[in-house]
Amino acid sequence: MHRYRSHTCAQLTKADVGQTVRLSGWVHRVRDHGGLLFIDMRDHYGLTQIVADPDSPCFKIAETVRGEWVIRVDGEVKARTPETVNANLPTGEIEIFAVDMEVLSASKELPLPVFGEPEYPEDIRLKYRFIDLRRETLHRNIVKRTKIITAMRNGMTEAGFGEYATPILTASSPEGARDFLVPSRIHPGKFFALPQAPQQYKQLLMVAGFDRYFQIAPCFRDEDPRADRLPGEFYQLDVEMSFATQEDIWETMEPIMTSVFEQFADGKPVTKNWPRIPYDVAIRKYGSDKPDLRNPIIMEEVSDHFRGSGFKVFANILANDPKAEVWAIPAKTGGSRAFCDRMNSWAQGEGQPGLGYIFWRKEGDKLEGAGPIAKNIGEERTEAIRQQLGLGDGDACFFAAGDPKKFASFAGAARTRAGEELNLVDRDRFELCWIVDFPFYEWNEDEKKIDFAHNPFSMPQGGIEAFDSADPLTLKAYQYDAVCNGFEIASGSIRNQSPDLMVKAFEKVGLSKDDVEERFGGLYRAFQYGAPPHGGCAFGIDRVVMLLVGAKNLREISLFPMNQQAQDLLMNAPAEATPAQLRELHLRTALPKKED
Amino acid sequence: MHRYRSHTCAQLTKADVGQTVRLSGWVHRVRDHGGLLFIDMRDHYGLTQIVADPDSPCFKIAETVRGEWVIRVDGEVKARTPETVNANLPTGEIEIFAVDMEVLSASKELPLPVFGEPEYPEDIRLKYRFIDLRRETLHRNIVKRTKIITAMRNGMTEAGFGEYATPILTASSPEGARDFLVPSRIHPGKFFALPQAPQQYKQLLMVAGFDRYFQIAPCFRDEDPRADRLPGEFYQLDVEMSFATQEDIWETMEPIMTSVFEQFADGKPVTKNWPRIPYDVAIRKYGSDKPDLRNPIIMEEVSDHFRGSGFKVFANILANDPKAEVWAIPAKTGGSRAFCDRMNSWAQGEGQPGLGYIFWRKEGDKLEGAGPIAKNIGEERTEAIRQQLGLGDGDACFFAAGDPKKFASFAGAARTRAGEELNLVDRDRFELCWIVDFPFYEWNEDEKKIDFAHNPFSMPQGGIEAFDSADPLTLKAYQYDAVCNGFEIASGSIRNQSPDLMVKAFEKVGLSKDDVEERFGGLYRAFQYGAPPHGGCAFGIDRVVMLLVGAKNLREISLFPMNQQAQDLLMNAPAEATPAQLRELHLRTALPKKED
Repeated sequence: MHRYRSHTCAQLTKADVGQTVRLSGWVHRVRDHGGLLFIDMRDHYGLTQIVADPDSPCFKIAETVRGEWVIRVDGEVKARTPETVNANLPTGEIEIFAVDMEVLSASKELPLPVFGEPEYPEDIRLKYRFIDLRRETLHRNIVKRTKIITAMRNGMTEAGFGEYATPILTASSPEGARDFLVPSRIHPGKFFALPQAPQQYKQLLMVAGFDRYFQIAPCFRDEDPRADRLPGEFYQLDVEMSFATQEDIWETMEPIMTSVFEQFADGKPVTKNWPRIPYDVAIRKYGSDKPDLRNPIIMEEVSDHFRGSGFKVFANILANDPKAEVWAIPAKTGGSRAFCDRMNSWAQGEGQPGLGYIFWRKEGDKLEGAGPIAKNIGEERTEAIRQQLGLGDGDACFFAAGDPKKFASFAGAARTRAGEELNLVDRDRFELCWIVDFPFYEWNEDEKKIDFAHNPFSMPQGGIEAFDSADPLTLKAYQYDAVCNGFEIASGSIRNQSPDLMVKAFEKVGLSKDDVEERFGGLYRAFQYGAPPHGGCAFGIDRVVMLLVGAKNLREISLFPMNQQAQDLLMNAPAEATPAQLRELHLRTALPKKED
Repeated sequence: MHRYRSHTCAQLTKADVGQTVRLSGWVHRVRDHGGLLFIDMRDHYGLTQIVADPDSPCFKIAETVRGEWVIRVDGEVKARTPETVNANLPTGEIEIFAVDMEVLSASKELPLPVFGEPEYPEDIRLKYRFIDLRRETLHRNIVKRTKIITAMRNGMTEAGFGEYATPILTASSPEGARDFLVPSRIHPGKFFALPQAPQQYKQLLMVAGFDRYFQIAPCFRDEDPRADRLPGEFYQLDVEMSFATQEDIWETMEPIMTSVFEQFADGKPVTKNWPRIPYDVAIRKYGSDKPDLRNPIIMEEVSDHFRGSGFKVFANILANDPKAEVWAIPAKTGGSRAFCDRMNSWAQGEGQPGLGYIFWRKEGDKLEGAGPIAKNIGEERTEAIRQQLGLGDGDACFFAAGDPKKFASFAGAARTRAGEELNLVDRDRFELCWIVDFPFYEWNEDEKKIDFAHNPFSMPQGGIEAFDSADPLTLKAYQYDAVCNGFEIASGSIRNQSPDLMVKAFEKVGLSKDDVEERFGGLYRAFQYGAPPHGGCAFGIDRVVMLLVGAKNLREISLFPMNQQAQDLLMNAPAEATPAQLRELHLRTALPKKED
């Protein structure tokens, strides 16, 4: 028999009754039923119940074992009596009568319980991550994470992509975030940087002729910790294709990612054909470029109904600003004064003056619009609004007015809130879409200048002609995001691989050809020696995993995360370097002065 | 039709004749046959011949294109005439008559030719790596590399392993090489380190209950560049298993790696059942713990034939030192004075006094041993040696004498040299084996103390009893290497997961419990809370790829390598940091003084 096990703790069933088996694993729980010991034994795969009574030759040892000890047990598989069968457990129809037991590794008193996984302070969980990771939920999440990533890899490989690992010790990159630096010992005073993303390398791979690239790529950004971002490193499914239009990229990635979602969605429906929603449309319909399409609310412009109306606030806004509009946020089933008032209070909490509304109710046979706005604009206009939006008895509608650029994101938040409060959002599905045609530039109000809206690598739409003639702020880019349930899960673009157009694009934001060369030297040079049209995208792996396991916190799906202070409590990092190390690296620390 | 291509440059065959197609790719070569232009067009997948004559509507454009320009061509597939068919090319039976042509990206004058891939200075190749990578051999090597790694991943996944990515920003580790450090911005004066290997993390994963781990793991060592090692980073197939004996690890990895080799061996035979050769036996038979088993020479001890013999040099060595032995290196077909003298000269070049030999030749009917040694020991002993080694007419044998610890590696080198010079080595096969039972400790002659022979993570054989009673230098470890054709391709061990035994093991090399805690804090702590028996190994991916593509230089199988001065010439790294970056990191550079 094998030194440690003949079976795993998830394998034995009624079919094995009578067999002599050997199991190894952790003591999950011990119950002492008056001299009869029940030990739930756990390994990576599952749980099996071990029984020892005073007749068992190993009873003396069995009495000593405690939670999280590692033991080996030899014994006979017995059927449980019908009343003790555990239908929730694959091994729930059997138990092992222990004949021999060996303690492979005892445990000191546990700093953190495993069984039952009660809430526990995060710093203890991180310091003892090797115990924390034994807890059922986290263990299952991590296993699911690895399977999701394997499914991504398989999907990409089957679609003809090669996985190319790009360098991790590289040059400081211009993606915009802060780099982690790595001092060079051999070149005093010089530094490598860890890649914020393999953006330049993947584009260089296209220039080098490798048609279809992907990588489960480690990325590094030295940013201040945030609730939705772990300090340090994260992974993305990084993709690039040559001789590809943006449609090619969508059509390639859609089936792969749909399949990944379907494999791990536990039967929840997943969008098969992802709608492609222009950025401008997304803003107007959903007030967001990350719309949650599970929310059925679609906003509409209703300006005309308010022009010259008796509701002077909106009428004046419309009269005074040609850019002004009024948008409606229809809220089916929201037709009560209580709900409308709640929404109004919420809006005030968000710093808005309030949230105008109409709600409809039957008065006798008549459907009547209620609330101050309805009163001010009168019955006819109220009815026209109702008809445009297709609302009825018991429904409501909220309004936002002004310059859409300024109120759109608030309107989007109101849409989200109404949908969630009214339970209009079907939580048990994955709604995926592409948001396309992002603006190429945006106006930086602080610095009163034009900036790149996304990244300077993207190709503007319309070619060099549009570029020379149009208002830069109206230019669109071949730039797109993938969105799931209100979260951005990917971003990508067709790249600008023309050195001339690259220089032009930078000029508009006030940067020179020299800046291009300094910031994208490798890429700019490469584009001058035969660069294919190319584009790609990157899916955020953490976000996809969080959606699929239903986790709210990144630490629930990460193996060895740092804490919010960017410390690894398990390994004790960062730590001081030795003077010899600093000397070799030609560095001195320049510590901030301590305050008294 | 698609914007860029209806087919790749490797797809079209005679079956497509008559079709109108669209291709995009690089101009590989242009030949002008008196007004008739032949353009070899290249993409990731292959080559297709484009033809344009003055009747072609795009002849004017075709005349302008040059090597490495990226073009799109529309045209009609035509069969080549029988005498122009190129049987070496999948598309060699057809050509495309160009009707329309578009320059997608022109190229400046090339710093480095692609076509014909002539030798070129390495610094240019690295600076323009995006062009270098278009060259056929390097491109093919890189594609093969990615496929080999995918095959490894698939093999591991099918065997029930999960791929777990371990942190890259972590703590300084005690593996022995120099760490790359990463200054922490948030914790002034403190540093992360890049992992030399995920050794501690993978063991922690076992303690956390994840039964079967693997990772294509990036590893970082700040060592001085060497011919057989790239500066900076390298990848290993990192593996760990719980509740496993060393036999489990061999039996798991053997079929996976055999299959990987077979998939990419181009039909060369691959060892299916890897011999398991104890370290001591490997040294005695092959003079190396990395034996090339394609070399049929097996050394044998022949001490008894020399004891008290007329060859006084050896007889005295044996008489004066009880540890002394004489080993024979039999060399079939090496039986000529010329060859034996050549070997002798080579040995002197290696700093040895010489290399004694006997060779056998037919004198009339009689098989006669020739050379000074044969003369000195006489006919009977010479014949006994011949019979022990199974040699005959035209064969030779070389001898090494003294303390085997001191001469074994030289004897191994002589074995290698004889095998290669005599063409006894079958180069067209992959001979794999495990070298097992490595010593746990070794004697450090410089410091006159005991050291760990391999790594302190390994489990000594014989348990705590052997540990307490035996001479430490006779202790074996559950430690093993995998070897292919004379190269170490993997190393591994069963780990010492007992905190007590860990402390004992460190005591023998003069380190205390505090040292254990300081150097392996995370692991030592983890072992006190229920650690399963576990072990694993790591395969060197670069070495496996080099063997399978037949490359001699790491740069032939690496995507974006640094040069021998640890610089990335393409991205210009390392580079100076800005004063703002240094300030944020609380660092000052302390540059070495320049000499005048």
